[in-house]
Amino acid sequence: MTDAPLLLTPGPLTTTDSVKRAMLRDWGSRDPEFEALTAQVRAELLAIANAGDAYTAVPLQGSGTFAVEAMIATLVAPDDGLLVVANGAYGRRIAEICARMGLKHDVLDLPDRAPVPPARVAEALAEGRHRFVAVIHCETTSGVLNPLAEIAEVCRAAGAKMLVDAMSSFGALPCDAAETGFAALAASSNKCLQGVPGAAFVICDKSLLLRDDHRSPSLVLDLAAQDRQFSADGQWRFTPPTHVIAALAQALDELRAEGGTSARLARYTENCTQLIKGMTALGFQSVLDPATQAPIIVSFSEPAEDWFDFQQFYDRLKAEGFAIYAGKMRDRATFRVGVIGDVTPSDIAAFLDAAGRVTRAMTERH
Amino acid sequence: MTDAPLLLTPGPLTTTDSVKRAMLRDWGSRDPEFEALTAQVRAELLAIANAGDAYTAVPLQGSGTFAVEAMIATLVAPDDGLLVVANGAYGRRIAEICARMGLKHDVLDLPDRAPVPPARVAEALAEGRHRFVAVIHCETTSGVLNPLAEIAEVCRAAGAKMLVDAMSSFGALPCDAAETGFAALAASSNKCLQGVPGAAFVICDKSLLLRDDHRSPSLVLDLAAQDRQFSADGQWRFTPPTHVIAALAQALDELRAEGGTSARLARYTENCTQLIKGMTALGFQSVLDPATQAPIIVSFSEPAEDWFDFQQFYDRLKAEGFAIYAGKMRDRATFRVGVIGDVTPSDIAAFLDAAGRVTRAMTERH
Ligand SMILES: Cc1ncc(COP(=O)(O)O)c(C=O)c1O
Ligand SMILES: Cc1ncc(COP(=O)(O)O)c(C=O)c1O
Repeated sequence: MTDAPLLLTPGPLTTTDSVKRAMLRDWGSRDPEFEALTAQVRAELLAIANAGDAYTAVPLQGSGTFAVEAMIATLVAPDDGLLVVANGAYGRRIAEICARMGLKHDVLDLPDRAPVPPARVAEALAEGRHRFVAVIHCETTSGVLNPLAEIAEVCRAAGAKMLVDAMSSFGALPCDAAETGFAALAASSNKCLQGVPGAAFVICDKSLLLRDDHRSPSLVLDLAAQDRQFSADGQWRFTPPTHVIAALAQALDELRAEGGTSARLARYTENCTQLIKGMTALGFQSVLDPATQAPIIVSFSEPAEDWFDFQQFYDRLKAEGFAIYAGKMRDRATFRVGVIGDVTPSDIAAFLDAAGRVTRAMTERH
Repeated sequence: MTDAPLLLTPGPLTTTDSVKRAMLRDWGSRDPEFEALTAQVRAELLAIANAGDAYTAVPLQGSGTFAVEAMIATLVAPDDGLLVVANGAYGRRIAEICARMGLKHDVLDLPDRAPVPPARVAEALAEGRHRFVAVIHCETTSGVLNPLAEIAEVCRAAGAKMLVDAMSSFGALPCDAAETGFAALAASSNKCLQGVPGAAFVICDKSLLLRDDHRSPSLVLDLAAQDRQFSADGQWRFTPPTHVIAALAQALDELRAEGGTSARLARYTENCTQLIKGMTALGFQSVLDPATQAPIIVSFSEPAEDWFDFQQFYDRLKAEGFAIYAGKMRDRATFRVGVIGDVTPSDIAAFLDAAGRVTRAMTERH
């Protein structure tokens, strides 16, 4: 539709028209055709994660946080001990999930602005109090990329199982099961996979679903029960978001057609490089050291000068056809611009033109 | 799309093309336009429930069961005591939710085939052990309509708060907050409201969200926190299923255009009467006493004769363009046919023609 702005957000994001058109059909949620669609999506998710037979992909109704909470509720028993590695709001959110559930956990509270230092994780694990470690792959709070492979190495050395929130990276940045040996990874339909929001999933080491000393305190978030059901008859336990799953199936086809995750990463990287260059030329400063910036979403410092007002900046950009995103960092005022979705370098160029016009208008007016 | 069968299922069901087309736009989930859409949907849900200022409508990501579990997790403290009134699988599911969460609860286990006798609820409440009562409005397991107003009366008399699962009735059968004084009611987008699956909601007495001696053990299912967030800034805490909500907004417009819930109920009632009459003429027996049948979904006994095989019956009907539903009753083999969704009496007539052809073919072959 012409009146919708281009979304430069961390997801939900701009999807292709063909992904949206995949929702123009109603599916019987227990019909064999929908069962087959679900099986196809699950297999494709495993393939993207390079996850072999030891893993299962369990889709879940709801947003990404539902999958993160389900991963923890299903896999982690109250006394297991979970180390939460937090360098942003999403890490801190995992700590809140643990607190609610009454799980034994410790938080390694790190600054938002830098990647997690693997040595700090090793240190925290040295006491041997933790059976699990939770870590965020791309911390969308700032846009920083955490060194997943190195953290995986540290976990392996300490005999701890790694749980990954790969919400904003899965589908573009490598989240390799064979390489990292993660115990489980949670992500959602509506970020780098370029589907619409409403479904999430956990890719999980099957052996962890077989514990008989623990089960999820939540019925709806029980991934083990859902996985058993898929094995038994291919069915969702509760009504699936059929249209959202159909859109995800189409989005996964389009990811393959684009050339897979590496081609997608290349496009996002180009978007990101061009965005930072152009915004810098307009006088904005990106917050992160470029070497640690994930090509997903970029945090810019809010200009300290009087002319800048986020709401006005947002509204004027939206009038130009672009929706950006508010900041979320703890220690500084930022705004964010996403580079993911059905967005190309020429879209970024158009955005930079608009940002230039808006910036000039706002500074001149002042 | 032409290849999709007409869904005679209890939801997800056949939606109008205009509802599906409402999904052809991407929304910024934190954009003021989407905030406004959310506010509009919430207000309309309250209006349908005839719920005044004492109530709030809290939408939730996920399927209907997510809303049921969220209602219980948010409102019921472990020691409150919850009486679960169960005359079907959905009542028993609530008992399972309570068991998982470790809530003090009792189950009033009643036969699937008949409505809940209010006197039995009164009896169970007489001991004064229960602060809450959970009841299913239309038990989709059989299709039976439970006497909500009478049960509400019994709850009121006993000083217990009534929690209603109105999943398969809301939008057609009266679920009146002013009349029944329910404490909370859970339903979803994809049944009588005729939206697509992926969102659910709880209509809740606001005062119950203000307890300071209890909070939800689940972060994602915490309706009190979500309601506070809506009050604070109109935002969802976690990514909403934007396209599903846009479809729901369109579906609510279409409900109003149809003439509201009473007009919708009249259409479903006509569908239901015609279905039972036609199926009876073909030799099938509906399971319920007609006086207790909700005009939502009808359970038919599986013919005991050798010619009948559900899978074959299903496949042949699907080849004719109709998807029916498997049975779910505890004590007898049934199949079900739904009469809700974008389905008219002429669709039912076409289905009956097809069912006639299929039945004749199956009996003749035998
Ligand atoms: C790293 C990360 N984790 C979790 C989430 C939460 O996802 P949702 O909003 O879908 O619940 C997000 C959303 O942006 C995210 O970026
Ligand atoms: C009465 C009732 N409660 C709960 C549910 C569960 O809903 P969902 O499958 O959306 O989780 C249903 C679904 O048919 C239902 O009919």
